Amino acid sequence: MEFSSKLLEKAVNEMSQLPGIGKRTALRLVLHLLRQPKDQTILLTSALTQMRSDIQFCSSCHNISDTQLCDICANPRRTEEIICVVEDIRDVMAIENTSSFKGRYHVLGGKISPMDGIGPNDLNIASLVEKVKKGTVKELIFALSSTMEGDTTNFYIFKQIQDYEIVTSTIARGISVGNELEYTDEVTLGRSILNRIPFETSLKS
Amino acid sequence: MEFSSKLLEKAVNEMSQLPGIGKRTALRLVLHLLRQPKDQTILLTSALTQMRSDIQFCSSCHNISDTQLCDICANPRRTEEIICVVEDIRDVMAIENTSSFKGRYHVLGGKISPMDGIGPNDLNIASLVEKVKKGTVKELIFALSSTMEGDTTNFYIFKQIQDYEIVTSTIARGISVGNELEYTDEVTLGRSILNRIPFETSLKS
Repeated sequence: MEFSSKLLEKAVNEMSQLPGIGKRTALRLVLHLLRQPKDQTILLTSALTQMRSDIQFCSSCHNISDTQLCDICANPRRTEEIICVVEDIRDVMAIENTSSFKGRYHVLGGKISPMDGIGPNDLNIASLVEKVKKGTVKELIFALSSTMEGDTTNFYIFKQIQDYEIVTSTIARGISVGNELEYTDEVTLGRSILNRIPFETSLKS
Repeated sequence: MEFSSKLLEKAVNEMSQLPGIGKRTALRLVLHLLRQPKDQTILLTSALTQMRSDIQFCSSCHNISDTQLCDICANPRRTEEIICVVEDIRDVMAIENTSSFKGRYHVLGGKISPMDGIGPNDLNIASLVEKVKKGTVKELIFALSSTMEGDTTNFYIFKQIQDYEIVTSTIARGISVGNELEYTDEVTLGRSILNRIPFETSLKS
């Protein structure tokens, strides 16, 4: 791609560093900014700059927060006895949207993945084990994605805490509510049969 | 979408103002910036800010440029007798990539589109007519997209310059080189038959 302007080329190159944004898309976005009033570019760049420099991570659960302790950890009505372990803050947002969890979270910041050079020490695992050691936690719910990396991470954490008196669980995998059986992949269908629940229990949820 | 941080929410909202970027994609991009070193955010925001404030448009062809006259218009080996009329700077880049045009360009900045409130006065049409009036231009090539708006714009310009001694042409529409006939849409196939060229001519290109 040949540019008639170095300034334009630089902006497109930086924009195309973002994941999933190729050169053509970057050019489209940058030209859009050029057509809009200058204010829009100023609003965008200042929001990004301020976020990158001022954002904090909750000292307890590592969720993104504007304060030292996030709103969830600071809420006395959320029990600290149940902790849901997730990879990413997007998972916290997704579970919060369901309004069906009243415990707290622990954001690992990723999964153990030797292929990507991510080991246990790169994740917020030590602080989770510390919480368990203190004795207030009664249940850990593993809500990582069901991939090899997710399973490895679950198992690594499980090994660290198995000597403490604590219940561990993983979120249920199965057929999505409303989905047809015939279109479900085999692994999910197989798991949903293995992990079947009493019919009476299903009536309550 | 509920955010645990106002700074994050603001950054996502600004990012999702860009065309084709929804809230979820914006969140993914912003979280990516958070995971990368601060430098990357600084490079991106400064490139965008500098581009938006310092970029210029060529005083002759309205192409994006870092100088008052763009490289193409300043190049004495590009004839000013043939002008290719395009909508957008991306069209200039696309045609330049083919290396098959040695004239100059005129970037309109859009098409006449009453539906979007874009009239002839919102486009760089007057300066094109001025160029024709001066008498140096011998041919205008219309290279707008073949939509109703493109055709309207072509015709509007044609009416303004028809009294001057000048050749006007439009780029050829037809089946893409290498494409199968059976998969081509009817309009394109129809036009390619109507606008057939002598076989000898096709051998030369």
